Amino acid sequence: MNVTAADLIILNGTVITMDHNGTLIKNGAVAVKGEKIIATGETGGFVSWKASKTIDAGGGIIMPGLINTHTHASMTIFRGLADDLPLMTWLNDHIFPAESKLNPEKVYAGALLACAEMIMSGTTCFCDMYLFEDHVAQAAKEAGMRAVVGEVLFDFPSPNYGSLENGFAYTEMLVEKYRNDPLINIAVEPHSPYLCAPALLQKASLLAQKKDLLLVIHVSETKSEVSQIKERYGLTPVGFLASLGILSPNLLACHCVHLTEDDITLLKKHDVKVAHNPESNMKLASGIAPVSELLKKGVCVGIGTDGCASNNNLDLFHEMSMAAKLGKVHTLDPAVMNAKSVLRMATIDGARALGISDITGSIEPGKKADIIILDTNRPHLTPMYNAASHIVYAARASDVTTSVINGRLIMEDRKILSFDTAEASQKVRKIAEEINKM
Amino acid sequence: MNVTAADLIILNGTVITMDHNGTLIKNGAVAVKGEKIIATGETGGFVSWKASKTIDAGGGIIMPGLINTHTHASMTIFRGLADDLPLMTWLNDHIFPAESKLNPEKVYAGALLACAEMIMSGTTCFCDMYLFEDHVAQAAKEAGMRAVVGEVLFDFPSPNYGSLENGFAYTEMLVEKYRNDPLINIAVEPHSPYLCAPALLQKASLLAQKKDLLLVIHVSETKSEVSQIKERYGLTPVGFLASLGILSPNLLACHCVHLTEDDITLLKKHDVKVAHNPESNMKLASGIAPVSELLKKGVCVGIGTDGCASNNNLDLFHEMSMAAKLGKVHTLDPAVMNAKSVLRMATIDGARALGISDITGSIEPGKKADIIILDTNRPHLTPMYNAASHIVYAARASDVTTSVINGRLIMEDRKILSFDTAEASQKVRKIAEEINKM
Repeated sequence: MNVTAADLIILNGTVITMDHNGTLIKNGAVAVKGEKIIATGETGGFVSWKASKTIDAGGGIIMPGLINTHTHASMTIFRGLADDLPLMTWLNDHIFPAESKLNPEKVYAGALLACAEMIMSGTTCFCDMYLFEDHVAQAAKEAGMRAVVGEVLFDFPSPNYGSLENGFAYTEMLVEKYRNDPLINIAVEPHSPYLCAPALLQKASLLAQKKDLLLVIHVSETKSEVSQIKERYGLTPVGFLASLGILSPNLLACHCVHLTEDDITLLKKHDVKVAHNPESNMKLASGIAPVSELLKKGVCVGIGTDGCASNNNLDLFHEMSMAAKLGKVHTLDPAVMNAKSVLRMATIDGARALGISDITGSIEPGKKADIIILDTNRPHLTPMYNAASHIVYAARASDVTTSVINGRLIMEDRKILSFDTAEASQKVRKIAEEINKM
Repeated sequence: MNVTAADLIILNGTVITMDHNGTLIKNGAVAVKGEKIIATGETGGFVSWKASKTIDAGGGIIMPGLINTHTHASMTIFRGLADDLPLMTWLNDHIFPAESKLNPEKVYAGALLACAEMIMSGTTCFCDMYLFEDHVAQAAKEAGMRAVVGEVLFDFPSPNYGSLENGFAYTEMLVEKYRNDPLINIAVEPHSPYLCAPALLQKASLLAQKKDLLLVIHVSETKSEVSQIKERYGLTPVGFLASLGILSPNLLACHCVHLTEDDITLLKKHDVKVAHNPESNMKLASGIAPVSELLKKGVCVGIGTDGCASNNNLDLFHEMSMAAKLGKVHTLDPAVMNAKSVLRMATIDGARALGISDITGSIEPGKKADIIILDTNRPHLTPMYNAASHIVYAARASDVTTSVINGRLIMEDRKILSFDTAEASQKVRKIAEEINKM
């Protein structure tokens, strides 16, 4: 009998692969060697395998780690600082003043705490837009998380890089620094059509094309943004980006709440990706994105939590449930945004949105091992007729027991192994005390 | 020094009392004797007290148990059986056939599992409408939960009581059986204006008045219901109930999704209570209830999860978050449905909606001790600027460590002490196997 060697075997669970055929393996197993998945199949097929570490999923669910396609991780430090306020009061009286005091230490501390929360709620990869992003990347690496990070670019001085020229230089520095990093990808991230002049947007787009990077931008988040852009350029925000020639398959458009039919046609035509952030859009009363319409037209949509100042959590289980239910009530059609399509948004389509579906987003031999295990032996997951339905409509962040990222065991029995979460929490509590005194 | 004796003291937490003044006690404590709360105050004030049991809240949140004002607890047995379907397909092809095979054992098993889930997500009291409600009451008693239960009444044969006459007799039997029960209150529960003829509704209302019971009914849940009632009676569902003279402070109207301004005026005028079920209304694509409008007019609104076939969980933390965010996006006003008002809906206003605010819904001396403790020493609850905001926007069911109901310790360190939840889960798994074979 041949003995095959692996570093890690996870067995005895329902494997939701999220591969192209939607394969589900009952009583299945996954073998990992180094950073990669090397085999999947029924648990019985692995009896002759040897592994340095074996994890019994105990009849639970083995699935790809969730992918948060839009967040501002370090904003955990502002969680609950100011809620239930009119948008401009919230921004001008609370968020902007607090952000003006940011520094690398605060950004690092907030991002590390965010990693703790994300890992503990089943997220293995996130796409971040903020300031001092080198420090967000460092926090992700310390936590062992996969991340796509990019320094936010806009037409006024930044607390990090000062003038815009330096912003581009900073982005190029990130690209060099993290070239070939196993966990970190760099993106070019102009803030939005309303905070970035055409020259900035075109320069950002050129840089992204030249270096083959993801281009990330907020688009059509609020009605007031749409009005501003129409007034300034006579076009919708999507139409404006199209006029600049920067719609492309590498563009991730975050929010996309207020879209016209023409906007949707443009997004589809250029294979632009969309990050849907239902909870933030609801809490800030921005509006409801036409996601089922985008899906119907074949636009690739991922899910994001946005930052903790407008959500106030980074929990993608909550976000999936919200996305499905919001889509249904918005269209008055209970059949749209079904559990499987929402699960795709939070996994493989999230990976596509970030341009990394060749390495993550599904459980398939050859891909990097970004895997989570859910314990389903709990009253609120009993009985189980349909695994996808349970994941989207009944499961909770706290059902995630285990997280493997890039082949490394990051959480086991809900204990994070890669860093000290108590210390990370304590550091943010100290920052919050300072903010409270401001 | 005087020593005061208590059965249970919970100390060292932020006490959210939900009393009339919204009192919050930092580093607070609560003392319980028998079924009742006998004192609240700062932890330091309890040094001279003695108690047979002391629980350290560890700096977490001590708050009233949550109140689920509308559910069908036993429907846990159908959780995830059929999702993402058009309403009539869902009802006619899946739910009704499964319900026709119900019996007391299944209803009991489903309700007991529901109690496990509810206790573990911070709910201490629920209002139930279903079949074989004597068995729901028995399950609640075994679990140690407070419940308001009522047999559903409609104009066609019931698998429980057969003809309607027997339905009223069954309700009266329940009233006698649970008179003076410390945990169970009985309600009269005609299903809805579309499944109950005027004679039934008036008889139910008379019975409720005579026995001083809560009257519970589904009202204006869907557009199609509103059309039907308009066609049949020329009135909106609320207008129809008003014409029968059954709007009263004892009436709990569940759902109230589609209301006219006149409907809202009628509800306010008669002090009718409303149970808001945002997740069910979203998942079934029924619509969005005008809750902020109801609150503005002074109508008392509680929160409900509805049953597990249309949600698919009984988690009031999730429901609070959804209620707040849905209210904001529906009105495009981020300031409505603030955290404090949503927290009231899930506690003291829920108790008012069920007519039991004299005994539960807040932490005040003299009330029954229905109390939960939240562990806030977790990454997703760090930092903490505002306790109410954390409870509504960031806390999860799994943060509830401890539950005290009617003075009895029901859950400690997330372990339910009152019954065997593994056995309860196993029984429902067996029922699900039968249902799968149907």
